[in-house]
Amino acid sequence: MSDLPKAVSIKEEGPREGFQFEKGPIPTARKIELIDSLSKTGLKEIQVVSFVPGKNVPGMADADEVVAGLHAEPGVSYRGMWLNEKGLMRALASTKLEIQAGLVLTASETFLRRNQNRTLEENLEGVRRMADVYVEHQVPVHRVSIAAAFGCNFEGDIPREKVLGMIAQLFDIARERGLDVGTIFLADTMAWATPVTIKRMVGDVRDRWPDKTVALHLHDTRGMGIANAMAGLEMGVAHFDSAVGGLGGCPFASHKGAAGNVCTEDFVFLCEELGIETGVDLEALLESARLAEDIVGHPLPGSVKTGGALSTLRRRLQRA
Amino acid sequence: MSDLPKAVSIKEEGPREGFQFEKGPIPTARKIELIDSLSKTGLKEIQVVSFVPGKNVPGMADADEVVAGLHAEPGVSYRGMWLNEKGLMRALASTKLEIQAGLVLTASETFLRRNQNRTLEENLEGVRRMADVYVEHQVPVHRVSIAAAFGCNFEGDIPREKVLGMIAQLFDIARERGLDVGTIFLADTMAWATPVTIKRMVGDVRDRWPDKTVALHLHDTRGMGIANAMAGLEMGVAHFDSAVGGLGGCPFASHKGAAGNVCTEDFVFLCEELGIETGVDLEALLESARLAEDIVGHPLPGSVKTGGALSTLRRRLQRA
Repeated sequence: MSDLPKAVSIKEEGPREGFQFEKGPIPTARKIELIDSLSKTGLKEIQVVSFVPGKNVPGMADADEVVAGLHAEPGVSYRGMWLNEKGLMRALASTKLEIQAGLVLTASETFLRRNQNRTLEENLEGVRRMADVYVEHQVPVHRVSIAAAFGCNFEGDIPREKVLGMIAQLFDIARERGLDVGTIFLADTMAWATPVTIKRMVGDVRDRWPDKTVALHLHDTRGMGIANAMAGLEMGVAHFDSAVGGLGGCPFASHKGAAGNVCTEDFVFLCEELGIETGVDLEALLESARLAEDIVGHPLPGSVKTGGALSTLRRRLQRA
Repeated sequence: MSDLPKAVSIKEEGPREGFQFEKGPIPTARKIELIDSLSKTGLKEIQVVSFVPGKNVPGMADADEVVAGLHAEPGVSYRGMWLNEKGLMRALASTKLEIQAGLVLTASETFLRRNQNRTLEENLEGVRRMADVYVEHQVPVHRVSIAAAFGCNFEGDIPREKVLGMIAQLFDIARERGLDVGTIFLADTMAWATPVTIKRMVGDVRDRWPDKTVALHLHDTRGMGIANAMAGLEMGVAHFDSAVGGLGGCPFASHKGAAGNVCTEDFVFLCEELGIETGVDLEALLESARLAEDIVGHPLPGSVKTGGALSTLRRRLQRA
């Protein structure tokens, strides 16, 4: 356990993953209310919207209004997501967002075909095109990302060699354009990872690219989210995506009613108990989680919001 | 990860932990329905009832009827729980239960005082008395157990030395009566454990009693259940309590609405993915989990019952 990081950075994905997934409709003002609440917890990176067509993802139809309406807190980096140049242009039109791009491949070709009707080669072509767009608009490219890196409901287990090969392809695309990309994101989009496969994958990626930062985007669809995050921490991973309350889920992967992203407050609780710095005020975050639950109007899977933080209990016991 | 056990044994606690905790009146026939369903999953040990006074725990008022009505499956060991001699006599009256006793201490004296209005010394005296009763009735004493071994909502963190000292006291009581007890159960009754404290505690216990079997009873109140179970597995622990659907909770520890025991099917899923033999048919168990949810009439926290087993998906993909 000696590799536990001293501190972690967390990218909060709740507003984007959650409101994209919820059947809604959720009023724009309430989305902003959650983002503003999260802004005061100490979280330093918040993914607030995805700039996708409202006809495809109704929950993101008001993305521009959400960004326009949020009350930006100094020191917090607000992020948006996009899938193509049109989405990027919408993101660039905002003055409130920190624009950081990623080069993304999906490890499952079956998923690609079913979900985007594309082959891997077509997808690579799309990545090259977007990379050119980033160069043209001087958008910093911060990460290479592999979606479905651990397995796919339509293809099955994904061999690690395949993931390593795709990461190499993405770095090639970056290098050809003079882009220096520092972070490798591994996304367990459909929740196939276990603590063992997390450790093996992170180990192999780090062996091959020892100078790069490894980051994890984990889903909790099969209840392994926190255990997988722990495995990442034990490998020294210090960058995680998560979603307040456990908001989210994968709208494409036929997981109706299943849990979403690994839950931010449960992860912050874990870090706090392990003595790993998150910069987050857990009690404030629990308030945000309860607010998220109120906004979506149904119970969210996070546990600490009902179980309670131990740091708070300890303080109370010390005073008593 | 080389210490992962090849196989684990699971004591299913759902019927006892769950029906003791649920507010509902749940008809006896439906309790039996769940037990009978669990009996066909491959689970080899099922804790079915607690013989406590119905006026204290209304959900257990029909304990004798539940035991009388269950359809015992060959090869399944049905268990009951009791807190005193009167309860034990009720258990002994049944021909269907395998009677195994434990010597139990609670690591938190504050909890003891609040919950049972007893001091540690009075509790030790009670354990000695029960040990005498077990000798008198020739009841095999199978385990020593420490409740609240990792922390207590009313006392705070529990030092490991205290737990080690209590285990030693229990072994002394056993030895004085010629009882050879093989198993040490560590119960995280109020969900204070983390993967790190699990590893430290299991390590210390094993260092001191290398010939004994260590077992874990974990709660998921703060979302750490599966991560803590994984930590146990990594330490070679091969005996776990869990509850189907994540039924249960602690009725005494002011955790209203909080998650209960670590969820059996999520734990079986983890083991299956790690190649650890459980003897359980996960699909059958998922049916039991859905039945449990139907019986209690509200969503239960387990994730795999909605996320789905990967073994099933893999088989389906191989056929396609």
